[in-house]
Amino acid sequence: MKKIITLFTIFFCAASIQAQSKIITQTMQSEVLKAERAYTVILPASYDKNPNKKYPVLYLLHGMWGSNSDWAQQGNAKAVIDRLTNSGESCEMVIITPNAGGGDPRDVWNGYFDMDGWEYETFFYTEFLPKIEKEFRIIGDKSHRAIAGLSMGGGGATAYAQKHPDMFCAVYAMSALMELPNPGVLPDGDPETKMYKLNQSVIENSCIKFVTSADENRKNQLRTISWFVDCGDDDFLLDRNIEFYQAMRNARIPCQFRVRDGAHDWEYWHTALYECLPFVTRNFGK
Amino acid sequence: MKKIITLFTIFFCAASIQAQSKIITQTMQSEVLKAERAYTVILPASYDKNPNKKYPVLYLLHGMWGSNSDWAQQGNAKAVIDRLTNSGESCEMVIITPNAGGGDPRDVWNGYFDMDGWEYETFFYTEFLPKIEKEFRIIGDKSHRAIAGLSMGGGGATAYAQKHPDMFCAVYAMSALMELPNPGVLPDGDPETKMYKLNQSVIENSCIKFVTSADENRKNQLRTISWFVDCGDDDFLLDRNIEFYQAMRNARIPCQFRVRDGAHDWEYWHTALYECLPFVTRNFGK
Amino acid sequence: MKKIITLFTIFFCAASIQAQSKIITQTMQSEVLKAERAYTVILPASYDKNPNKKYPVLYLLHGMWGSNSDWAQQGNAKAVIDRLTNSGESCEMVIITPNAGGGDPRDVWNGYFDMDGWEYETFFYTEFLPKIEKEFRIIGDKSHRAIAGLSMGGGGATAYAQKHPDMFCAVYAMSALMELPNPGVLPDGDPETKMYKLNQSVIENSCIKFVTSADENRKNQLRTISWFVDCGDDDFLLDRNIEFYQAMRNARIPCQFRVRDGAHDWEYWHTALYECLPFVTRNFGK
Amino acid sequence: MKKIITLFTIFFCAASIQAQSKIITQTMQSEVLKAERAYTVILPASYDKNPNKKYPVLYLLHGMWGSNSDWAQQGNAKAVIDRLTNSGESCEMVIITPNAGGGDPRDVWNGYFDMDGWEYETFFYTEFLPKIEKEFRIIGDKSHRAIAGLSMGGGGATAYAQKHPDMFCAVYAMSALMELPNPGVLPDGDPETKMYKLNQSVIENSCIKFVTSADENRKNQLRTISWFVDCGDDDFLLDRNIEFYQAMRNARIPCQFRVRDGAHDWEYWHTALYECLPFVTRNFGK
Repeated sequence: MKKIITLFTIFFCAASIQAQSKIITQTMQSEVLKAERAYTVILPASYDKNPNKKYPVLYLLHGMWGSNSDWAQQGNAKAVIDRLTNSGESCEMVIITPNAGGGDPRDVWNGYFDMDGWEYETFFYTEFLPKIEKEFRIIGDKSHRAIAGLSMGGGGATAYAQKHPDMFCAVYAMSALMELPNPGVLPDGDPETKMYKLNQSVIENSCIKFVTSADENRKNQLRTISWFVDCGDDDFLLDRNIEFYQAMRNARIPCQFRVRDGAHDWEYWHTALYECLPFVTRNFGK
Repeated sequence: MKKIITLFTIFFCAASIQAQSKIITQTMQSEVLKAERAYTVILPASYDKNPNKKYPVLYLLHGMWGSNSDWAQQGNAKAVIDRLTNSGESCEMVIITPNAGGGDPRDVWNGYFDMDGWEYETFFYTEFLPKIEKEFRIIGDKSHRAIAGLSMGGGGATAYAQKHPDMFCAVYAMSALMELPNPGVLPDGDPETKMYKLNQSVIENSCIKFVTSADENRKNQLRTISWFVDCGDDDFLLDRNIEFYQAMRNARIPCQFRVRDGAHDWEYWHTALYECLPFVTRNFGK
Repeated sequence: MKKIITLFTIFFCAASIQAQSKIITQTMQSEVLKAERAYTVILPASYDKNPNKKYPVLYLLHGMWGSNSDWAQQGNAKAVIDRLTNSGESCEMVIITPNAGGGDPRDVWNGYFDMDGWEYETFFYTEFLPKIEKEFRIIGDKSHRAIAGLSMGGGGATAYAQKHPDMFCAVYAMSALMELPNPGVLPDGDPETKMYKLNQSVIENSCIKFVTSADENRKNQLRTISWFVDCGDDDFLLDRNIEFYQAMRNARIPCQFRVRDGAHDWEYWHTALYECLPFVTRNFGK
Repeated sequence: MKKIITLFTIFFCAASIQAQSKIITQTMQSEVLKAERAYTVILPASYDKNPNKKYPVLYLLHGMWGSNSDWAQQGNAKAVIDRLTNSGESCEMVIITPNAGGGDPRDVWNGYFDMDGWEYETFFYTEFLPKIEKEFRIIGDKSHRAIAGLSMGGGGATAYAQKHPDMFCAVYAMSALMELPNPGVLPDGDPETKMYKLNQSVIENSCIKFVTSADENRKNQLRTISWFVDCGDDDFLLDRNIEFYQAMRNARIPCQFRVRDGAHDWEYWHTALYECLPFVTRNFGK
């Protein structure tokens, strides 16, 4: 009887040889937002075994219409993380995806910036990040904190690091909403709607303008961060990513730029992780 | 009001620019198996628009414990297919995953070979393939028919082509069960169980023995097929894949062999599609 | 004595198992140019064994300051060709590099276009191509003729296919001089110099303007060609390649676009061959 | 006049934006070998600018019939180093290729091991490495010293780290001569010849036997090193590399293993650098 299951045992052992990260989802009450917000955390395989060890952190942001569970579910992030950590291409890190959305931006709040009625950026810096970095064993300095994201989250990641260059060592922007597709042009609509305010906030936080209008002091601050911009050749946001990269290059702020095959979809972002995780790894602790 | 949704429209247009393949799932009644069997078909983007066009076909087999829906769901095959077809790296083809399992092999039948009580191979060649190639617009000759699969399905794909070299032009085996992990050794157990019979069928259909015992005539037949073996360095079946490749090389039957980073998991097989689809594409119509 | 050299024999056998392409260099007298011009040809491994077989052809153009031997020597093209042909990723083809330079453009003629005193384009179409495609066993129709090149040769390849859409099925442009770095601005200088005329010819043959000024008829012709644009993120010609891609996309002429890591150097072009050869292969015979 | 050269200036600036490593070749007199031996050093781009900075070191060994200049010339190592260092995928390091050959092994001494008449290993550890690490600004501890090599040099790198696990943090073996192709079988011949002694030394230093015969203490030492084995599917040494990897895996000593497309040639080793340099980089300073 014992032997009859040999093959299965081998199957399961094979799976368990590899160290596994762990996905957890939690919620917190925000006073700023006056709402309960969920977040997803991917803890490295050794987290529970080393109760005193502290880890670098990567904030990995989702896109419009999305939520905190996107990277774990649609992005299948765990598979890539475990692969790269086991082969040594990525170091162990805590990966955090906060919820800056949760559905249709006409109905629910979406966005990483402060808007009238939804001060998400304030929430992020005064409530979320401090709580998270206390709750989990995170080193918590600039040289061990990176930020990345897709689409609206790629714009969020870029803008966050632009405004807080003392807090992040590396940014990996995927198919990023660096600006509105039609830059600077606010679509008509009722200024009281969530969608209108979201569009407005993207214009106000234009990642491109931030660079083109930066003085030498600000450029020097941006040079303390490692930048990586990755956007598909079929992506409707490609032109904005090109403009961002050109602005960075013209400002002599080192920035990697890649255009791979693909569009604005999860297969692009899933494969981007193979570049993103080694990239942030080699920038941690520098 | 029309303008307020500009951004979303752009989002959805961006998605719809790319031609999309279509996943359908159907069932058929098998007289051989005395059971209803499901199968999943991925039709190329142009299928409905070209009502007279015939396509090459790829049989893409699932593994033990799996089912016909695996490649579409766990393997996220559609994303890769659409990407590669849009960039031209893959041609349009019909992809078929039959169901040779459906759950725990101790409880339900698993396997691509004929067993006492489950004559799957007979079903495949006398019922399934003829029906499918009539039901869908498939060219239906050797030079436009390829077969691939993962694990038990990689062994199935290899053995099917070995026994029917006149039917397949290309084989892509992923993490293939070329033999039992402990080769030739039948785990003890009740010979009446489904699991026992499955193990027995794998030994009887050893892909390795097929090559090492092939005479020159059979080798010549195998040389009419293009072979590709792909297995992770952390896969518990690696040694059997190595033996198969060595047998092929020693028999002077051209065969590509790759060991990439990874284990026996869906991330490996998902990424294998990026190699598999261009490989079968370039072998079609030769 | 026989046995002592076992190890070496094995070494050399190992090398010789792989089929090898063959590099030859020849010259021809041009009446148009009133000069002797050299060209380098890479013949596929099977060329001599199949005296009746005809092959597809790839014109692979060199850059400014370069010459016909560049791809074979600095680009180490043979190694990539043999690798990809042996693995099946590339089909067998004849690869031709004509000499459109030979040194410092201030001293010797450089360029693929007609200039006053150096009618290279006329030479190419009336003397060189006809002679080559007769001299070697080349199929010689649009669907088996592709063109690629680096820098000045990337611009040349693009412009040649633009003006002769009935002659080429595929274009792969690397770090291409689609326009002058400072577009449309002719550097001052003596209009009688070779350099001045070269700059002038690049402006006149702007690949970007060709697309932005194309009418629907011309766009339709360009859509019969498969296009691939590949340029490094550190390349000083990146912005011109971006503009070309944007022009193609806006004109709805399908075009692949990639930005990989790298600058305007041979390592970039050498690695580009790994994409270029499979690309032209899958476009041959369509 | 100044403006006429605009285009060239841009060309050369483009090239010079990227930081460049520097290749130097020197010789030293060996008392052990009673001969003058050459060595090639690739110094990182910042070496001269930071007169007090110390760097990690990679010993990058050549193969049989080869010499110290091979990696710089045939391997075109500088191009890869500069690319990866500029993009951040590789850290700055000093790369050393000593000369353990210089021609036909029947005529001149080849080999990394001690032989009767050619005590190369003794030379390496008592004369070469101490001198080099004093001559250049090398950190000089285990965690900043890696070793890699191709063919005979891959076997040398592996055996050196096996015997000196306190000295190296990482090993990258390419197409490595882990044993003779016909393992343990000494080809007949005159025992007084250089070739006979070389073969003998490879058998005596079998990297495979070293692992299979290791006790737990030795295994623990080997586990302090990061291992990477990379060998082409068409390489005549593949089977020996497979055996080495299997021995490592069975001894539970973590080791990465890759089989890429290719044979025993410079294109394989050139492309291996893209994996090798990031690999040693991430193992430095751990």
